[in-house]
Amino acid sequence: MSTVSKTLPARYYTDSALFRQEIESFFFQGWICAGRADNIPNAGDYFLREIAGESIIVVRGDSGLVEAFYNVCRHRGTRLCSAAEGSFAGRIQCPYHGWTYGLDGRLLGAPHMDHPETFQRSDYPLHKLHTDLWDGHVFINARPHPDPLTVQLADLPARFAPWRMAELRLHKRITYDVHANWKLIVANYNECLHCPVLHPALNRLADYLGSDNEAPQPTYIGGSMSFRGAAQTMSMDGKRRRDYLPGLSENQRNRVSYYVVYPNLLLSLHPDYMMTHTLWPRAVDRTEIVCEWYFHPAELSKPDFVATDAIEFWDVTNREDWHIVELSQAGIQSRAYTPGPYSSREELLAAFDQVVIQRNPITEANEDQRK
Amino acid sequence: MSTVSKTLPARYYTDSALFRQEIESFFFQGWICAGRADNIPNAGDYFLREIAGESIIVVRGDSGLVEAFYNVCRHRGTRLCSAAEGSFAGRIQCPYHGWTYGLDGRLLGAPHMDHPETFQRSDYPLHKLHTDLWDGHVFINARPHPDPLTVQLADLPARFAPWRMAELRLHKRITYDVHANWKLIVANYNECLHCPVLHPALNRLADYLGSDNEAPQPTYIGGSMSFRGAAQTMSMDGKRRRDYLPGLSENQRNRVSYYVVYPNLLLSLHPDYMMTHTLWPRAVDRTEIVCEWYFHPAELSKPDFVATDAIEFWDVTNREDWHIVELSQAGIQSRAYTPGPYSSREELLAAFDQVVIQRNPITEANEDQRK
Amino acid sequence: MSTVSKTLPARYYTDSALFRQEIESFFFQGWICAGRADNIPNAGDYFLREIAGESIIVVRGDSGLVEAFYNVCRHRGTRLCSAAEGSFAGRIQCPYHGWTYGLDGRLLGAPHMDHPETFQRSDYPLHKLHTDLWDGHVFINARPHPDPLTVQLADLPARFAPWRMAELRLHKRITYDVHANWKLIVANYNECLHCPVLHPALNRLADYLGSDNEAPQPTYIGGSMSFRGAAQTMSMDGKRRRDYLPGLSENQRNRVSYYVVYPNLLLSLHPDYMMTHTLWPRAVDRTEIVCEWYFHPAELSKPDFVATDAIEFWDVTNREDWHIVELSQAGIQSRAYTPGPYSSREELLAAFDQVVIQRNPITEANEDQRK
Repeated sequence: MSTVSKTLPARYYTDSALFRQEIESFFFQGWICAGRADNIPNAGDYFLREIAGESIIVVRGDSGLVEAFYNVCRHRGTRLCSAAEGSFAGRIQCPYHGWTYGLDGRLLGAPHMDHPETFQRSDYPLHKLHTDLWDGHVFINARPHPDPLTVQLADLPARFAPWRMAELRLHKRITYDVHANWKLIVANYNECLHCPVLHPALNRLADYLGSDNEAPQPTYIGGSMSFRGAAQTMSMDGKRRRDYLPGLSENQRNRVSYYVVYPNLLLSLHPDYMMTHTLWPRAVDRTEIVCEWYFHPAELSKPDFVATDAIEFWDVTNREDWHIVELSQAGIQSRAYTPGPYSSREELLAAFDQVVIQRNPITEANEDQRK
Repeated sequence: MSTVSKTLPARYYTDSALFRQEIESFFFQGWICAGRADNIPNAGDYFLREIAGESIIVVRGDSGLVEAFYNVCRHRGTRLCSAAEGSFAGRIQCPYHGWTYGLDGRLLGAPHMDHPETFQRSDYPLHKLHTDLWDGHVFINARPHPDPLTVQLADLPARFAPWRMAELRLHKRITYDVHANWKLIVANYNECLHCPVLHPALNRLADYLGSDNEAPQPTYIGGSMSFRGAAQTMSMDGKRRRDYLPGLSENQRNRVSYYVVYPNLLLSLHPDYMMTHTLWPRAVDRTEIVCEWYFHPAELSKPDFVATDAIEFWDVTNREDWHIVELSQAGIQSRAYTPGPYSSREELLAAFDQVVIQRNPITEANEDQRK
Repeated sequence: MSTVSKTLPARYYTDSALFRQEIESFFFQGWICAGRADNIPNAGDYFLREIAGESIIVVRGDSGLVEAFYNVCRHRGTRLCSAAEGSFAGRIQCPYHGWTYGLDGRLLGAPHMDHPETFQRSDYPLHKLHTDLWDGHVFINARPHPDPLTVQLADLPARFAPWRMAELRLHKRITYDVHANWKLIVANYNECLHCPVLHPALNRLADYLGSDNEAPQPTYIGGSMSFRGAAQTMSMDGKRRRDYLPGLSENQRNRVSYYVVYPNLLLSLHPDYMMTHTLWPRAVDRTEIVCEWYFHPAELSKPDFVATDAIEFWDVTNREDWHIVELSQAGIQSRAYTPGPYSSREELLAAFDQVVIQRNPITEANEDQRK
């Protein structure tokens, strides 16, 4: 007789020390998705990402490579740049005393540092992070000697090649500030058991009982869901107002794939568009979520291109989800909370919890005071 | 030669750890007043109470009994309900995955929990608190096996029976957010030495030197004050615009009784109305105060019923009091603060302080670093 | 071969415990500048100062002396006064129960404290701080037996006597709330290496290469800067619209002196006006800055007196500085921050850092966890 899987102890959602440990293990020891390369097409184009109080500059270098640097001048520590996105004119200059760096991070100029016997410019490049791309998704890694990104992605690149994600272009971004632990958002994304109760609109378009979860993997989880009735995509009325993405098979045209690439990319592949959520934990009980909608350039260039059907559908659904995970966060903080049982429809969550526990075991030092 | 009683050391008003300990000993180890039963007359009617981050559902059950539950679903911990008051249609359903409970807390339905060998609905009722009533006041208790409420109330039910509090009905509620420790509000309520300086309006109606304190009791303190001159009740001008509450003696008609039932009910019985304050500590230096005015139904139904005289009078007085306890909170946080001497008019405060110290002694582990 | 001086480890700008220690050593163990005596000309006139959560009353006494008291009633700890400035009518009365103190802090009245065998008014004066003046600047000291102010000021009174600061009068005050550690503001004030990059307006008026730093002293640092071209003072266009301060030599008319009297007075002496900044640390990463402009009474009384040229100039420059120190604060909080090298133009900063380290050494107990 097996025992039922249960949700995590409360402290995984409420303890700030455990949260910081989790951020280290998930966000600073592995690859995380930082955004999209098509948002910085030209040399000098950049965007900033904030991870647990760290500001990271992601910039297109002179050679066309995407680079990532900590946003910290080597002189007196000043943030080099504060606009969320923009373009550097060939170099990155500190606004305080004018130290100047190349797009590859090398220190090019440092006014009045005129003691050659004690100061070498080569000793003060910007602190760099590793970068890599997967079909237009930019990944960064803070470790000095990381494993290749391909290890983390495993078979995903092959599997999702037909969607030709690198060709797609950003059309819309909405940022949400959610008062819940980041893992509650991952969990919410990985089951549709809640869809009949919480998402009446979504439930009309897809049958949560028809979802098809892949066996959980060490670095990602996910599955797909087929449409219900005449629905052809996720939109307000289920109608599809854009051509299928080129390259999809008949079977791929009839379903939506939902994958979490640990820790922070939620990838939702529709027959006619791609939606991504990236998660940016701000505190143990707060997460910033960047949701983006991507379309095929051929569609975007059509005079009658429309996307509000897809954007509104997901914006409504997103808000329903964020509200309910905030209620979960509030309830889990109660002394009355005890781990509860998962149903058979929540098997991916149990798998994710195991990854969490494995990377962040409860030690004697951080043992829960609750029962 | 006796020594003078002095106020508590600063840390009882400034130390968050001691605050949490105090909340445990006062709010989770004894009965607290949660509100009034007449506000939830019908089965399914409920209101929420927040105690130190805990949300409690107080609900009228099918049998007419008042029940209290932690607002936490047994599935994944979600808060079941977020509206401050309302009515459940016969059952309490979680908005996330639809787990459904009866008004008695029993789990009635749990979708897709279809492993009878590992899951029994009877294992997952809502977490319940004990409830009891005193003349319409709802009391709750978080202990597994509490003493009866009558032990805590002692002789109060007999003494205040003539006011027939159960018959009275809510007319007005004002909620205040006060930046002061809850005990400073209790202390402020229990002496009128400050009335000549702080409350010129009140001081015209009652003689603080004519107040008559009862000897302090282990679970409550209080006393009464007779009117000055032609005043007949506490109102803007001392005039009484409502009939005397039925059942009061001549002597009871000529005074106001002020009692604190530890820890959170401040009960003010006037000749023609009842006022209650319930205290909801939010942090060591912050308290939410719910002030309510109750009147006799016979008065409430009169076409010329008026209550603004009583409400405005106390709202003004309340605000004067909250302002001054906020100044006390600010001053006590100073390194210059040292316990100061109580006068003979502050004897109830010294008694309350002794109860506080007895329930929350300063131990070596939490000893004050200040002198 | 010498090694280059470097900025402080991050924790001096990010660690709340070290911050509290620093506030003790700099703000409660020495003299700090509290404001100006000319703002409280008459007996009973007062202003409040907040230092690290402490409220201090600075008041002109009956004898004409300036006194300073903790804003805490000796009865129940209430703040005696909450308006930022004003005038007491001969005595200071607590708004709660009416305890009354003289302007010298003696307790004069305490209602109902009628136990002469246990209560003596002389035991309950206000808690006093030491006060002293330097040419109109009020200094206070919280130590029981401080060294004289003259020890801290050293040769500054003699040096700046020609400016006759005591004669000057306040014309304008602007208060800034800056999200940066107080030491970053001191550092910013003590070098003009950043002027060409950050302050184009200022850089047109003065040549940062022509600045003349005095050798760093144990209790202050500073220097002077001569004007560039036709500029005659610091104003929007470099024009001087007020007479020179009487008593200045030709040489003193041609420069601006910038001195930091540790820990919190930034004194900027111009040919025709005085500007002061006083720093009020609020948290490790937050500082309130009070900036004031003082002019000679002869100028202030002229019908065509104008000061907007000087005020606007510095307000713009201030805001540029506060923005950049906020960027420094943000960058230093990064894990990527490491102490960076000072140029020869930042020698005063290195000297200040040494004073900071000497007064607040990193001990084993508070050792940095970072590398």
